[in-house]
Amino acid sequence: VTENADASRIRLGMVGGGAGAFIGVVHRIAARLDDHYELVAGALSSDAERAALSGRQLRLAPDRIYSDFTQMAAEEKSRPDGIQAVTIATPNNLHYPVACAFIEAGIHVICDKPLACSLEEAVDLGRRAKEAGVVFVVTYNNTGYPMVREAREIVASGRIGTIRSVQIEYAQDWLTELLEASGHKQALWREDPAQVGPGACAGDIGTHAFNLMTYVTGLRLNSVMAEVSTFVPGRKMDDEINVLLNFDGGARGSLWASQVAPGNENGLRLRVYGSLGGIEWDGEKPNHLRLAEYGKPPVELTRGGFGISGAANRVTRMPAGLPEGYLECFANVYFDTAELIRAKLRRRDPDPAAVLLPQVTEGIEAVRFVDAVIESGKSRAWVTTNI
Amino acid sequence: VTENADASRIRLGMVGGGAGAFIGVVHRIAARLDDHYELVAGALSSDAERAALSGRQLRLAPDRIYSDFTQMAAEEKSRPDGIQAVTIATPNNLHYPVACAFIEAGIHVICDKPLACSLEEAVDLGRRAKEAGVVFVVTYNNTGYPMVREAREIVASGRIGTIRSVQIEYAQDWLTELLEASGHKQALWREDPAQVGPGACAGDIGTHAFNLMTYVTGLRLNSVMAEVSTFVPGRKMDDEINVLLNFDGGARGSLWASQVAPGNENGLRLRVYGSLGGIEWDGEKPNHLRLAEYGKPPVELTRGGFGISGAANRVTRMPAGLPEGYLECFANVYFDTAELIRAKLRRRDPDPAAVLLPQVTEGIEAVRFVDAVIESGKSRAWVTTNI
Amino acid sequence: VTENADASRIRLGMVGGGAGAFIGVVHRIAARLDDHYELVAGALSSDAERAALSGRQLRLAPDRIYSDFTQMAAEEKSRPDGIQAVTIATPNNLHYPVACAFIEAGIHVICDKPLACSLEEAVDLGRRAKEAGVVFVVTYNNTGYPMVREAREIVASGRIGTIRSVQIEYAQDWLTELLEASGHKQALWREDPAQVGPGACAGDIGTHAFNLMTYVTGLRLNSVMAEVSTFVPGRKMDDEINVLLNFDGGARGSLWASQVAPGNENGLRLRVYGSLGGIEWDGEKPNHLRLAEYGKPPVELTRGGFGISGAANRVTRMPAGLPEGYLECFANVYFDTAELIRAKLRRRDPDPAAVLLPQVTEGIEAVRFVDAVIESGKSRAWVTTNI
Amino acid sequence: VTENADASRIRLGMVGGGAGAFIGVVHRIAARLDDHYELVAGALSSDAERAALSGRQLRLAPDRIYSDFTQMAAEEKSRPDGIQAVTIATPNNLHYPVACAFIEAGIHVICDKPLACSLEEAVDLGRRAKEAGVVFVVTYNNTGYPMVREAREIVASGRIGTIRSVQIEYAQDWLTELLEASGHKQALWREDPAQVGPGACAGDIGTHAFNLMTYVTGLRLNSVMAEVSTFVPGRKMDDEINVLLNFDGGARGSLWASQVAPGNENGLRLRVYGSLGGIEWDGEKPNHLRLAEYGKPPVELTRGGFGISGAANRVTRMPAGLPEGYLECFANVYFDTAELIRAKLRRRDPDPAAVLLPQVTEGIEAVRFVDAVIESGKSRAWVTTNI
Repeated sequence: VTENADASRIRLGMVGGGAGAFIGVVHRIAARLDDHYELVAGALSSDAERAALSGRQLRLAPDRIYSDFTQMAAEEKSRPDGIQAVTIATPNNLHYPVACAFIEAGIHVICDKPLACSLEEAVDLGRRAKEAGVVFVVTYNNTGYPMVREAREIVASGRIGTIRSVQIEYAQDWLTELLEASGHKQALWREDPAQVGPGACAGDIGTHAFNLMTYVTGLRLNSVMAEVSTFVPGRKMDDEINVLLNFDGGARGSLWASQVAPGNENGLRLRVYGSLGGIEWDGEKPNHLRLAEYGKPPVELTRGGFGISGAANRVTRMPAGLPEGYLECFANVYFDTAELIRAKLRRRDPDPAAVLLPQVTEGIEAVRFVDAVIESGKSRAWVTTNI
Repeated sequence: VTENADASRIRLGMVGGGAGAFIGVVHRIAARLDDHYELVAGALSSDAERAALSGRQLRLAPDRIYSDFTQMAAEEKSRPDGIQAVTIATPNNLHYPVACAFIEAGIHVICDKPLACSLEEAVDLGRRAKEAGVVFVVTYNNTGYPMVREAREIVASGRIGTIRSVQIEYAQDWLTELLEASGHKQALWREDPAQVGPGACAGDIGTHAFNLMTYVTGLRLNSVMAEVSTFVPGRKMDDEINVLLNFDGGARGSLWASQVAPGNENGLRLRVYGSLGGIEWDGEKPNHLRLAEYGKPPVELTRGGFGISGAANRVTRMPAGLPEGYLECFANVYFDTAELIRAKLRRRDPDPAAVLLPQVTEGIEAVRFVDAVIESGKSRAWVTTNI
Repeated sequence: VTENADASRIRLGMVGGGAGAFIGVVHRIAARLDDHYELVAGALSSDAERAALSGRQLRLAPDRIYSDFTQMAAEEKSRPDGIQAVTIATPNNLHYPVACAFIEAGIHVICDKPLACSLEEAVDLGRRAKEAGVVFVVTYNNTGYPMVREAREIVASGRIGTIRSVQIEYAQDWLTELLEASGHKQALWREDPAQVGPGACAGDIGTHAFNLMTYVTGLRLNSVMAEVSTFVPGRKMDDEINVLLNFDGGARGSLWASQVAPGNENGLRLRVYGSLGGIEWDGEKPNHLRLAEYGKPPVELTRGGFGISGAANRVTRMPAGLPEGYLECFANVYFDTAELIRAKLRRRDPDPAAVLLPQVTEGIEAVRFVDAVIESGKSRAWVTTNI
Repeated sequence: VTENADASRIRLGMVGGGAGAFIGVVHRIAARLDDHYELVAGALSSDAERAALSGRQLRLAPDRIYSDFTQMAAEEKSRPDGIQAVTIATPNNLHYPVACAFIEAGIHVICDKPLACSLEEAVDLGRRAKEAGVVFVVTYNNTGYPMVREAREIVASGRIGTIRSVQIEYAQDWLTELLEASGHKQALWREDPAQVGPGACAGDIGTHAFNLMTYVTGLRLNSVMAEVSTFVPGRKMDDEINVLLNFDGGARGSLWASQVAPGNENGLRLRVYGSLGGIEWDGEKPNHLRLAEYGKPPVELTRGGFGISGAANRVTRMPAGLPEGYLECFANVYFDTAELIRAKLRRRDPDPAAVLLPQVTEGIEAVRFVDAVIESGKSRAWVTTNI
């Protein structure tokens, strides 16, 4: 990653992410880190007062603090210095209408995951984005980790051979108790079908797991067989899924996502095994990647260390041994997005490495995955995903 | 564990386990470690010459070196100094006839896993052992690890609450290539349906995983949904299974066993999550156990360390920090078996702790598990295990 | 850490840190991350052309791009919108003259470590900063890690009792070969006595180790006995030090710093043992802290996790399990510095937590430590540090 | 390691190690594991009653249960079936007289460490053993670990180049409190100068560290500079040492041994860095060895795994992934000792690999190391070790 040395910064707006929100500040830090963006407008809350407060706190110009995203899209479109891109950091159910408004205004979109609450909405956004010709990135941020890029590169290079087995898991413990009952803000909306769509755990972290494994392996998921569980008494939605995975071409695997696994803070772990070797990556130790080529002792690859490819080094800031973390991987998504947006603005081809970012297509696939999991959980049968 | 301070040692015979075998020497070291047994007779091979050589190498008396286990059972039964127990360390398909012979001779049985190649044989052995009143231990050796005992104790104590999710895996990589093709002895018989029964990976390591999780959790497995895979071209049997688990009482989980996962030597890992906490154990770091009580930072329990229960300390030899391994856990199975046998010989009740050893009942359940997995793999539907 | 919600940002200048420098961009990201600063002026290189280029790349106003730091101090002092603070990111030998210039201009100073090339300079800076009443922070950045703050808090609370032994090490491998010979920029200046002062490894990473251990333990280092080594043939300065440590009050310990230890990228590890317990922290896993209270199993404390104090949570951005790294710890130094500066600007008392930052006094002590180590290496005798 | 397939077993006696002792049972298990020895005689305690009880519990023949080691040496010497070797498992101060008695009887000696309480005794034992032509092994058992053998092999092969730095530590916590005060048997004798010689921590675990580092590196220790500490109030001897190490040929290093470091059970860790690479070994994870060749990513070598030399495989029993531990490494010392003894008995040359075992010469060097450390601690100056 290089610090912005361009003559200008991309003018960015934000919808959602006001005071008290978790993910809004993540997006802002990610946008700020390498100085490629300048936050100039926002509809940071649908509550006018909170929107105003949040906007002032971010030192936005008063006339660019909105409480209505439709108005924001329209006004920004008409300004000569209007925003060039918008970040959508709202609960899931608003992704669709907000994205529609900004796509229509010809403004590039950076949308939090999952893309939408239903497959229909997701597909429709895909169609609209394509027609409008806007960049539409979905922030499956784990793809921004250098060692995830390295993993992808290793698989693509054939170094571990034909993939046979994919084991992926995403384990958390923060929903072990019924936080919803005590009014915990994050728990409340994340376990509310009206705001998140059909899957809670499936949509929140299951889709991260899905996206990560398909990003790294390049495999197409053919069908799933899922057990969808709600363990905590009184909870309305799923808090754990156990899924069997069948990929096109014969690979098999398992996906486990849980938000009720005590002792796991954010345990996203991917293991891919092929005919020639295996790789293992752990999101809590993101600067490392274990590579075992069959017949040789395993090696510990490290971000910035010996034997790392350009794919990973391109999104590396610090020397080996100085740990990079979650904010840096998120910033890498913003870094690549800046490249996609500038290529559009300047009518040139983007760096092919940036094109690998999860975009609206990957967003649609993840929604389809959630649908298939939930359906399989109900039917107790294999469900084709058509991904 | 205490070194034998009894006036006598148990007279032990062995069937199978001659020169070149892997597991035979493990049983002998395990029997020898604490000096509770004396190996005095053997039918170490069905090949007479090899049996004789192996017997001489172990300094058995010439008249107690057999090549025919039926003859061995009969002769040892009739000797005043005949063996009191026999270890069965043959390929799986011989477990049944050998066990029948020694049960009939009233000799206690220590049988390698899995118990038998079919459920019928397994159930029949259960019936015979019960009628004969002999001790019949199946060496699911992982139950001998002190920290596995500690895990069981923690679950039983209610410290992690009601179990919700069980994640277990057993990953190896030694069958990544078609070793059978090059005449590799272990690979040859372990991938031959005639010698191992319906499941290869399922029977060899899948049953270890099954036994471990039921031992620790005490849960009854209600039904399974399995994907049974043969990844290596030319292989006759399964080399990986991915299984969804439904337990009585609502717990759910996943089991993954693979022998084609490069970078995994003997990766047996168990994780159990309940309403109050979780535990994690890794068979490659068997002296450790991680305990996370929800709401507190996780603790690292260590064999012999602070806060360990009598259940684990009872099978501990060395102080904390001096690592114990596979042979010691196997020796613990022999230690507890000695207690079961002596209780029989002396017509007293055994130490209740020793009774927890996997015996013929647990052996039957593991065979049933393999059947269910293989059936589900074929039918692609949930299969009730009735365990 | 909270994102800046103040009506204004602190106007920041930078000396050194132009294109191609390592630490300059670190300071800029750290300043930018939470939006408390705005970089508005710079003398980014002493080479006028490179200074101009670097300034333009950072979008500085043309009249605030300087190549002469004396001129910069003077002009910025006289501007109504002049900088309020300056970051010094030059090689060590320039810290003194640059700091003098800005102190004289009444501008707050954020100086990279080590403070100066000689004890005389260091002490003089201390005197000048005090007289001028400016904030003077030395960026011993490891003090910014939340779990380092937690470690300090645990020691201060008496939870591990009276400290007996301190084991600290900082191991790298990047100077294993004679990089200086091939013109490697970082290696060249870091192994040049004229630019770094008497100690190379001692000054570069030895002082980090020194600062970290005194920050966490609060102990005063009484005397040292050091072996100072230059292992790589052709090298002019030390590339490893092994040091015995005697603290006031009876604690003892060892410090090892090496830049020629293959397999160590940035291995900064601190272990502190007291009469009641011990703590261990590893800079490559900075989100974790191991606490062993004697008589209990060790616990794994995690940033943002259960049982963490306000001292650590205050400088935490992300929830537990989302790793924070080097840039975030550096940003925490800038965050606390912003508090110190704002308190000065607004004539109020700063948050006491921010006052704990390493400042010019700690900078002086670290220089004294280097002197003592180098002297002991020569005399082969214990040297009193008077720290 | 191969199970004994010899026509006979070595007849072994034991002095010390009766009921309640720690190390006696370790020696017996080690001797028994591979079946190369038969314990047939013992003076297991100097207390006649306890000696008798212990002998009976081990099923020794009544006429071979002694309470006087002098008598035992004499009588066993005169028996046609007398012992061929003796294990000395007494407190340190008895090593000398017991060893003298058995050497004089022409019986091979396996002596626990450290060899003796004074350098004079140690050197005298060396002379006597040489004159008598007996095997004299000192059980610095860590040399028995396969991956320690591998480490030695890697250094000897030149793969990590010329050694520059050796970092070794041995940290325990069991003496954190004044156990002696409460009559703790192990603590009592291990902190009594009359029974252990001049150094407590230095002699008990410091010599293990010393032996391990010289075994692996082959370096000669030239001089030491030590801080010798007694941290626990009321303790008579040292409970921690911090030592600077100067080796012939220019290598340097540090040694830290502590028995008051809470959270460390048995933390023996060796790191060796050379001009081409580094190795790291941790005695609590003894089946692993990390190798970093400069310029390549580090590899994880595992016992029995890919890329392991014959030196390690020779002392390996179990396949990769089935952990071996402390008892197995101790058994490897007995295995190699059996080879040395049989070579003597059969007047042939021993396997050169077995000759590498620590013997009386290495025992003397370790005593010299303790003397030098204690002297340096008093003089506060560098002390030449002449090792």
